[in-house]
Amino acid sequence: MFRVTTFGESHGAAVGVVVDGVPAGVAVSEDDIKRELNRRRFCHIPVLNPRCEDEEFQVLSGIKDGYTEGTPIAIVIWNKRAVSDYYQELWMRPRPGHADLAWYLKFGRFYDHRGGGRASGRETAARIAAGAIAKAVLRQTIGVEVSSHLIELGGVSIGREDYTFEDVVKSWEKPLPMIDDEAMRRAIDVLIEAARNGDSVGGIGEVLTTEVPPGLGEPVFDKLKADLAKAIMSIPSAVGIEFGLGFRLARMRGSEANDQIVLRGGRPRLETNKVGGLLGGMSIGEPIRFRVAFKPTPSIRRPQRTVDLSRMEEVTITFKGRYDVSTAPKALVAAEAMTAIVLVDHAMRAGLIPRVIKK
Amino acid sequence: MFRVTTFGESHGAAVGVVVDGVPAGVAVSEDDIKRELNRRRFCHIPVLNPRCEDEEFQVLSGIKDGYTEGTPIAIVIWNKRAVSDYYQELWMRPRPGHADLAWYLKFGRFYDHRGGGRASGRETAARIAAGAIAKAVLRQTIGVEVSSHLIELGGVSIGREDYTFEDVVKSWEKPLPMIDDEAMRRAIDVLIEAARNGDSVGGIGEVLTTEVPPGLGEPVFDKLKADLAKAIMSIPSAVGIEFGLGFRLARMRGSEANDQIVLRGGRPRLETNKVGGLLGGMSIGEPIRFRVAFKPTPSIRRPQRTVDLSRMEEVTITFKGRYDVSTAPKALVAAEAMTAIVLVDHAMRAGLIPRVIKK
Amino acid sequence: MFRVTTFGESHGAAVGVVVDGVPAGVAVSEDDIKRELNRRRFCHIPVLNPRCEDEEFQVLSGIKDGYTEGTPIAIVIWNKRAVSDYYQELWMRPRPGHADLAWYLKFGRFYDHRGGGRASGRETAARIAAGAIAKAVLRQTIGVEVSSHLIELGGVSIGREDYTFEDVVKSWEKPLPMIDDEAMRRAIDVLIEAARNGDSVGGIGEVLTTEVPPGLGEPVFDKLKADLAKAIMSIPSAVGIEFGLGFRLARMRGSEANDQIVLRGGRPRLETNKVGGLLGGMSIGEPIRFRVAFKPTPSIRRPQRTVDLSRMEEVTITFKGRYDVSTAPKALVAAEAMTAIVLVDHAMRAGLIPRVIKK
Amino acid sequence: MFRVTTFGESHGAAVGVVVDGVPAGVAVSEDDIKRELNRRRFCHIPVLNPRCEDEEFQVLSGIKDGYTEGTPIAIVIWNKRAVSDYYQELWMRPRPGHADLAWYLKFGRFYDHRGGGRASGRETAARIAAGAIAKAVLRQTIGVEVSSHLIELGGVSIGREDYTFEDVVKSWEKPLPMIDDEAMRRAIDVLIEAARNGDSVGGIGEVLTTEVPPGLGEPVFDKLKADLAKAIMSIPSAVGIEFGLGFRLARMRGSEANDQIVLRGGRPRLETNKVGGLLGGMSIGEPIRFRVAFKPTPSIRRPQRTVDLSRMEEVTITFKGRYDVSTAPKALVAAEAMTAIVLVDHAMRAGLIPRVIKK
Repeated sequence: MFRVTTFGESHGAAVGVVVDGVPAGVAVSEDDIKRELNRRRFCHIPVLNPRCEDEEFQVLSGIKDGYTEGTPIAIVIWNKRAVSDYYQELWMRPRPGHADLAWYLKFGRFYDHRGGGRASGRETAARIAAGAIAKAVLRQTIGVEVSSHLIELGGVSIGREDYTFEDVVKSWEKPLPMIDDEAMRRAIDVLIEAARNGDSVGGIGEVLTTEVPPGLGEPVFDKLKADLAKAIMSIPSAVGIEFGLGFRLARMRGSEANDQIVLRGGRPRLETNKVGGLLGGMSIGEPIRFRVAFKPTPSIRRPQRTVDLSRMEEVTITFKGRYDVSTAPKALVAAEAMTAIVLVDHAMRAGLIPRVIKK
Repeated sequence: MFRVTTFGESHGAAVGVVVDGVPAGVAVSEDDIKRELNRRRFCHIPVLNPRCEDEEFQVLSGIKDGYTEGTPIAIVIWNKRAVSDYYQELWMRPRPGHADLAWYLKFGRFYDHRGGGRASGRETAARIAAGAIAKAVLRQTIGVEVSSHLIELGGVSIGREDYTFEDVVKSWEKPLPMIDDEAMRRAIDVLIEAARNGDSVGGIGEVLTTEVPPGLGEPVFDKLKADLAKAIMSIPSAVGIEFGLGFRLARMRGSEANDQIVLRGGRPRLETNKVGGLLGGMSIGEPIRFRVAFKPTPSIRRPQRTVDLSRMEEVTITFKGRYDVSTAPKALVAAEAMTAIVLVDHAMRAGLIPRVIKK
Repeated sequence: MFRVTTFGESHGAAVGVVVDGVPAGVAVSEDDIKRELNRRRFCHIPVLNPRCEDEEFQVLSGIKDGYTEGTPIAIVIWNKRAVSDYYQELWMRPRPGHADLAWYLKFGRFYDHRGGGRASGRETAARIAAGAIAKAVLRQTIGVEVSSHLIELGGVSIGREDYTFEDVVKSWEKPLPMIDDEAMRRAIDVLIEAARNGDSVGGIGEVLTTEVPPGLGEPVFDKLKADLAKAIMSIPSAVGIEFGLGFRLARMRGSEANDQIVLRGGRPRLETNKVGGLLGGMSIGEPIRFRVAFKPTPSIRRPQRTVDLSRMEEVTITFKGRYDVSTAPKALVAAEAMTAIVLVDHAMRAGLIPRVIKK
Repeated sequence: MFRVTTFGESHGAAVGVVVDGVPAGVAVSEDDIKRELNRRRFCHIPVLNPRCEDEEFQVLSGIKDGYTEGTPIAIVIWNKRAVSDYYQELWMRPRPGHADLAWYLKFGRFYDHRGGGRASGRETAARIAAGAIAKAVLRQTIGVEVSSHLIELGGVSIGREDYTFEDVVKSWEKPLPMIDDEAMRRAIDVLIEAARNGDSVGGIGEVLTTEVPPGLGEPVFDKLKADLAKAIMSIPSAVGIEFGLGFRLARMRGSEANDQIVLRGGRPRLETNKVGGLLGGMSIGEPIRFRVAFKPTPSIRRPQRTVDLSRMEEVTITFKGRYDVSTAPKALVAAEAMTAIVLVDHAMRAGLIPRVIKK
């Protein structure tokens, strides 16, 4: 019911999004959108964003005098004049690890390979703009907040599990959203070292919410667990997702894995929430929590082997442009946005979000 | 385009499925369906299926003279007279780890809690019947096979990565689908020991396919990676999914993680397929491969704490019925079925499956 | 959100329906379903239903102790042993006016042509069963009733516009649902005469509702007007639909066509409702009203020309079986059901129907 | 599979559209889009378009070097600085016959009522831009053309049924697309006279296609007949649709209504095509043909009664702005566009349109 349609290629005129099904009367400003878009810039760590350009965007419809109208919200994020000359020598030569190969095989010579085209991480800027709307809806209706942090980056793990939602929110005031300062410093060192070696690193992020009202999720195929997994795995570079303790649960006994149900604050609560806030794939009044694995940026400044598809022969290519040494931090912001979008959709399906937010 | 609708509660008259969008002219027999349904029975390991009942099913429409008609296929799997007396004392007392709590919070007193109702693993029998149709479609059109095996059960891991698709297929001739005999024997021991202790275990399965034609998956939200993740995470007890090396990729450098592209058999191939057969979330002519974590069966024969929702007080319950010491093996069959269903749907969207299979 | 999936062929084992998305706690009995199924029998006018068989149906899931559970409701309507020998000589010889030609062209030799197969009016029995559920939901939530009557049958028109919703409801106590007794008698004469001549007739029905809460319908593609049109035009034999005065509005001036807005009962109302209860394609608190044109039954007992598709030559066929001299009365019951289904779906989308009906 | 998402309000920054699911390799130029947008301007008949402004639009994505890329095509049509002062006195005073009342009831004070906001006919410009893409796809794949003409305008009917598809196409070279010159002249007189009297008129249009390949349409709910009806009835001011002879068929006997099936050009054809090219709701290789009733423009320059919703009292309003004396000609262009969009979608579902158009 809350429909997000994105468009745009990395080296075209713009990327953008149409958000349909937004209730009327939600207070949303351009600043709300700008703030979310800025979260994925990481300009203070140059190896994460060598270009560090400002995002220029425009809201074309659906918001008037600071409030949503209930009509589709269209947002255009203009592309800067990108240097695409470099990409000429990559024509028909899919970069290992990138989506190029898939796009050439699907769309042939019509694929705009420059900067990864539509498969570029740039497309997620449009999702993040939509996420800003979704977050405003969640906050102003069911009072749910979504945040995230990095559990691991470049092999450096935070090694703590005793954090609160507020700790996680605050981690975004640091250079990298890692709740452990020591780990963060080491992770930054690793990023710099990897960049120096022309290499890249992956990471693991965790998305958390405050308590989500029970009953979100539709049995049996549109479970909240299922729709979150889909939304998250639609993000470029996401290669795995686990809810709660995830793969660790698979190694436990039932007696260890089961969250006991206790009475707290007058309502049934999970004593431990190892399961990540979902039972039967639906929300139960607990915070939701899952982890996402992001693979390393495929772009590296080292010779790699590929096939020239026009001549069907093996060639070696070396990427010479600037690249983000890890896309995990940016992708994590997109994961948050997708989470907010899925939650709004399911809250609507559960009848928890009116079509007009009364003031 | 290939739509699967299931229905039915654990202790109602029947569970079943309607499969819509099936091409005409696919050869499907009742034996094909029976064979798949039997794969989830595991009667030879009694702790995995204490009841071990035969499935009685009926095809109501859509198949005539051994061929699909192109119309919806409805299959009813009749429920045996289930002993539901036991469930009276569980009324309004959600079992820890089960979907009960979510269902009570969503549907209140209208929830049919007996045997887990609609949230029961029994519902997956309907998916498996649909999977039998999907597998027939895949085989008779794009020539793709889907199989699976257990990587780990009750903490016992196969500890090998040098297996072929055929090894995996053959593993189903053994008591448990584990390619390593020694690991399998130890896993069975663990199952028996856990059952003796009134406990349960989880596991990790892997789903594999033969080479999938390139181009399946729709950018950007309906990527094959995304739709597989959704389908798999809609299965009860699934708590995580990772594609290819998954979480291990997040710890690698780009230089290590990127699959080099080589020319093999006249077409571009991945040298290593660490990524699991998907780039940009789409198929690229490689086998697809992902792992799924299943949590332990929540039913255990030990006292557990819960809340009586009618009186809003904490109580202790002890499950006295029979239970499957691990649902992972059964759930793996459902994961295979869901994979086949998603592949048919995407092959249709890619225009690879005609509406009539010519004979 | 309220999803109806039907299955079954005319001469297969059964037709049936799965209704998904039904709120929990709706009181529905088998009698409610039986009553609606009986409305399409018209046994008292033998030329409308020469076979006049009782419908045997079974509710497989989703209803327990007289209340919906919130889970999919599956209903199977068993087919009687149909005499299908006759159809052997129609194999590959599409009957003029029937769906046969389309099905042969789409599904080739896999089309079950007996009795029209899936394209048979019999499929609408499944819709009517779903409509019984939908009507119960409407009645027990937003208090809306749906009814219908025949405006014209076999060229005989009621020639009155001064009827109330109650008049329309009561028309179903008569042999034919026509509010004008004289017209009804003449229509019955026409039916009998047409049957005697081996011919068939068409008709025009009108569907009406009581006042529908404002705001149903989603701009711009999923307007209520649009979804009703789709639902109605999915009924076999429906060839036209017009809302309010419909085609007559196209011949009026704006000054004549515009319904003035007046204050009545403390809220804005249309003075005249020529438009049929929808503005901007959405409900506005007025009753909804539209007319549907049904073409004559294609089956007639006269020689007709067709093409034998196996030999690709022109042939003459004469239908020898029993047929309904007009399908309009039956189809009208299906139109009512489809209307109720669309209204429930849109009331859900507008957030007017909770997931649990509190008792 | 071919998804069209529009956005934009009449007096906002822009209206626009995202077209998703377009195959790669379709030749589309900005001229193709401009040409379709121009067809709805009718500047040569000033009472049909008093403002007569040029459309300025921009293609933001999805087309490169004259060919579609297979990615979403985003088109923005900028709004001119509209004079919206006038609308201040219409605030909370819904204009009779307009969508205003529905929007106020649904979205309250967040409704942008200026120029009808999102419910304005201006939104259809976005559909027409999408229609230009759809027409290019149809032409370059299955070779189908779509056209339309006015059957009746302001009560003046063409009174001919002996026209060809080419006649219909050529009618667009005239001031009004009416195949009969005499009727056209009288219709123009009626338009001018109605405008002079501050009134407006409705009309009836007919949409026709060339031969559509058989098999488009999905039984039973997504019939082509059903989806066309939905698409057409989603157009503002459309109040009725009839396929083929439509309502006239309802008054015929079966012996008169049934199109006999004959062998022509080596394939089965309808001798007469009274049914409008669809049997069982699916295409059968015949041209498709249906008529649409458009009500008169609700805007008239006469006092009309309405309710001031902020003070809940009856008031009289008189529209003083410029208005189109009939929206039927413009709406007809939108009807053509929607038809093309539905045909592409169904041709894709039937597997007739590859994901890449090979050059």
